[in-house]
Amino acid sequence: MSDTVVVGLDVGGTSTRATALTLTGERLGTGRGGGGNPTSHGAERAATELRTALRGALRDVDPARVRAGTIGLAGAARLLADPAGRTAFDRAWADAGLRCPYAVHGDALVAYASGTAAEDGTVLIAGTGAIAARVHDLRLDRVADGHGWLLGDAGSGFWLGREAVRTLLADLDTAAAPGPLGRRLLAELLGSAEVAPRPRDTVDALVQAVTRRPPVELARLAPMVVTAAVEGEPVATALIAEAAAHLVASASRIRPAGASAPLVLGGGLLTGDTPLARAVRAEAVRRWPDAPVRSAGDGAAGAAWLAARDLPEVTDPVALHALLVPLA
Amino acid sequence: MSDTVVVGLDVGGTSTRATALTLTGERLGTGRGGGGNPTSHGAERAATELRTALRGALRDVDPARVRAGTIGLAGAARLLADPAGRTAFDRAWADAGLRCPYAVHGDALVAYASGTAAEDGTVLIAGTGAIAARVHDLRLDRVADGHGWLLGDAGSGFWLGREAVRTLLADLDTAAAPGPLGRRLLAELLGSAEVAPRPRDTVDALVQAVTRRPPVELARLAPMVVTAAVEGEPVATALIAEAAAHLVASASRIRPAGASAPLVLGGGLLTGDTPLARAVRAEAVRRWPDAPVRSAGDGAAGAAWLAARDLPEVTDPVALHALLVPLA
Repeated sequence: MSDTVVVGLDVGGTSTRATALTLTGERLGTGRGGGGNPTSHGAERAATELRTALRGALRDVDPARVRAGTIGLAGAARLLADPAGRTAFDRAWADAGLRCPYAVHGDALVAYASGTAAEDGTVLIAGTGAIAARVHDLRLDRVADGHGWLLGDAGSGFWLGREAVRTLLADLDTAAAPGPLGRRLLAELLGSAEVAPRPRDTVDALVQAVTRRPPVELARLAPMVVTAAVEGEPVATALIAEAAAHLVASASRIRPAGASAPLVLGGGLLTGDTPLARAVRAEAVRRWPDAPVRSAGDGAAGAAWLAARDLPEVTDPVALHALLVPLA
Repeated sequence: MSDTVVVGLDVGGTSTRATALTLTGERLGTGRGGGGNPTSHGAERAATELRTALRGALRDVDPARVRAGTIGLAGAARLLADPAGRTAFDRAWADAGLRCPYAVHGDALVAYASGTAAEDGTVLIAGTGAIAARVHDLRLDRVADGHGWLLGDAGSGFWLGREAVRTLLADLDTAAAPGPLGRRLLAELLGSAEVAPRPRDTVDALVQAVTRRPPVELARLAPMVVTAAVEGEPVATALIAEAAAHLVASASRIRPAGASAPLVLGGGLLTGDTPLARAVRAEAVRRWPDAPVRSAGDGAAGAAWLAARDLPEVTDPVALHALLVPLA
């Protein structure tokens, strides 16, 4: 058993991370590649980043020791349905010297598994977009939101950015002086926090500055809202509370009131002790007072645990989780 | 005075309308051209439609009798700032045989003037987009919303279409059976009102059907919401009420509580006795109990009145309004 190694990969839009672990939790190596989401980057490019990350993780490991692997990525179902994509991933796996099989799961399941060992629960993710998913027997079951910026992603980074600009525009419409968050948005988008003598000129300039970029880039303003909320700025604080209410409402669509299974919070806006995570926890404790709320941790380790738990020598997957996955 | 003719034009995104009136209210001719918004169609194309509409209105009129004219169009300020656009409009005006000067005003002012002769008031417009404007001395003064579909247009046709799809998606997330409006949207967007055995497949198909078209085309779904609301469908009724609240909130940014000046409702969703107009009137009467609420009427006639009222022989512009502008 001490010879057995498992490999986990977390393929994200901005980076791909791999980890190689023994079943006693020894971390033999980690690797990192660029963004590898096959939906946005194409399967060949995703496979290249996968190969880079795998080689890093296996630099000091005999690949023959690796007995199982799991790859978590957004759009997993689409990749599995695409023979060319599957072939590209098979080749990257073989190029790294691996001979064991591997499983592909959605990034939401890997995020879930990085926060809890419970077979049933809910994962709620907020980054650029937002999605909630019910986990049953460690499979993604039902999903809420994830509808994209035009029709959904309520409470996401896109949503926070858009609502921050909308609030600023409403202030300018009423000729109210923008608050601290509004002034920062003006400086970011227009290069100056000053409002024109005719506020409508500033309104028009703001609308043009936003609409000449792809809409999803509004998500880039979310960190400004988060920073302002940390400082207690009232507009930002209200937006964070509203985003939390949207996120919990999305989770409620697939999670009954009073549920006691764990709720795992993931994505850049909810991982760790962020203002949005705090607001979601406060909402969640009202709706699901008996449920533990966890933060997603190391997705690659969560993926490695998903791979390891099906090995015949693993008799206590919950104990194994404690060894393999550093809880956030 | 009986020889004097005035010309009014209402240049919209889907049609351009012209009317020629005597100061006693005799309608000597009307003309119609295609969509002529210079911002979306270009100034040359707009000038061509203007020429077509003008020729129709002046078919039976000696152009030497025309003493004044007004053109109402969206993006008036941009046209006036663009020498090439101004030249194209000058040429169209001269090509129709007109020698008098003309004024260019925003379409919102022309809509306002088609509903009231009061020099001060508010106009609230909801079509594909939504905008509110304060009118002072028959000039557009301050503006609220009109921020476009990505950042604003709250309560507009785009907003109604988007929110109708969002409500349907939320129902599908909870595995609830769609209501009558939801089934109509499914039939319109997917060709069938049936939900797939896995509702998420229907969710994905809906998101794809919407996102492969330009976002603003969500406004095409607004008439389905209006029709459903007329029939008392509960989801549609709630969306109409919410849209009305947004529109009145936009107007409130530029209109003090308790204002008694007229409020004119314009645009395809608010002109006449529409469900949205009724809901806005109900909201407005709560907020501005002393104010008359009017419907915008014939924009070309409103434009003609704006042209006529500055002629030296006009001594009672309010009486002239009653003659020239058929109230809706």
